[in-house]
Amino acid sequence: MTRVARQVKALTFDVFGTVVDWRGSIIAEGRKLGRRKRIAADWAGPVTTADWAAVADAWRAGYRPAMDRVRRGELPWTNIDGLHRRILDELLTRFRIEGLTEAEKTYFNRAWHRLAPWKDSVAGLKRLKKKYVIATLSNGNVALLTNMAKHAGLPWDCVLSAELFGHYKPDPEAYLGAARLLGLEPGEVMMVAAHKDDLDAAARTGLRTALVRRPMEFGAKQDVPPEARFDFNAKDFVDLARQLGC
Amino acid sequence: MTRVARQVKALTFDVFGTVVDWRGSIIAEGRKLGRRKRIAADWAGPVTTADWAAVADAWRAGYRPAMDRVRRGELPWTNIDGLHRRILDELLTRFRIEGLTEAEKTYFNRAWHRLAPWKDSVAGLKRLKKKYVIATLSNGNVALLTNMAKHAGLPWDCVLSAELFGHYKPDPEAYLGAARLLGLEPGEVMMVAAHKDDLDAAARTGLRTALVRRPMEFGAKQDVPPEARFDFNAKDFVDLARQLGC
Repeated sequence: MTRVARQVKALTFDVFGTVVDWRGSIIAEGRKLGRRKRIAADWAGPVTTADWAAVADAWRAGYRPAMDRVRRGELPWTNIDGLHRRILDELLTRFRIEGLTEAEKTYFNRAWHRLAPWKDSVAGLKRLKKKYVIATLSNGNVALLTNMAKHAGLPWDCVLSAELFGHYKPDPEAYLGAARLLGLEPGEVMMVAAHKDDLDAAARTGLRTALVRRPMEFGAKQDVPPEARFDFNAKDFVDLARQLGC
Repeated sequence: MTRVARQVKALTFDVFGTVVDWRGSIIAEGRKLGRRKRIAADWAGPVTTADWAAVADAWRAGYRPAMDRVRRGELPWTNIDGLHRRILDELLTRFRIEGLTEAEKTYFNRAWHRLAPWKDSVAGLKRLKKKYVIATLSNGNVALLTNMAKHAGLPWDCVLSAELFGHYKPDPEAYLGAARLLGLEPGEVMMVAAHKDDLDAAARTGLRTALVRRPMEFGAKQDVPPEARFDFNAKDFVDLARQLGC
């Protein structure tokens, strides 16, 4: 086991894309909604997987600019449920998805509370949890992360969220706030994420870093090469557990 | 099942005394420390259980006044680890406990991270978790609650603490903050506690209430009569699970 693996006491996890497959899950929820509501009327043909993939991708693509508006102070603090709903309302118009009741919109918006884990996530987290405190550190709000954990069986020791700090990642307050709440020095915390910008921001605040490759996050397989600047590079959570001696 | 049991979505738990036996645990940690360090020299005789019970009781008795100083603004926000340490330092002088290194003091102060659950706590929480979101709502800090859960096997969905709100219970901000973070209306959250003042404060903010009787919290058995003003009165967590149809 490396020196870093011994110094680290807690692992904080990015969630969307790293722990759960947001894209596949949103597509599946969209298809269910489409079948139930026969949402094909305003489309060129029957609702296909590809259509809902476009919705999922557009929903996710709206997320970073919406957060950036909060980060720049153009919007007051709005949690991810609120940002997702703002984006959804635009998408319903853009994709001409009509006839949804308010309750159905609310339910669809909460699809983000029901995302499915990658197939190694639960097994890997259970191994990592034996040795480390494992916590979320997501831009998702606490309720979203809590409901998702219950739905997906994610065995977090603690649910930490940008919402607790009033700062979205990659603001340094989010990473430093997590270390503070865990009662640890930044160097005793390791950020685990599939996204290099998240890890680079964590490293700038003194956290350790582990890249977990999720080549299918955006649909078509993408190559995510390992990077020597991260403390660990792993192909999934089970591989990370192995590398950390769990 | 009652109407209240159906409306409630999440249970928030007081921890010290309600979930864990702080007194028995601190006495046991004190005795271990005493044996290891032969802390008897400055006492009238060998260290007895009764001596460490006096330390435990004095430690706990110092907690409410210390929090009240924070609540009145006489002290800046200080988490429970910090308040426990302030009190411990006074007690080491008062009880003439000498010869502890800084590392030993830190370790003893963190005895509050290692408190043992009442014997029904884990089994009851596992049952309650099947149907409800279960979260702490304690004045203990996040790190303390997270470490305690790991040590004692408490299966929380989410760790909520006064620390997240900058307000100790019974300030209303703590109860309302918990409901907000859980994405619920106050009436969808039920506070579970062994202490009537905690439940009364929760009820004033609109939360539902369940009294769990812990007659041994303070050592000699105390009668804790049920009160009709609470939504539920239970003799332990397993009884509460039964009453809630879990």
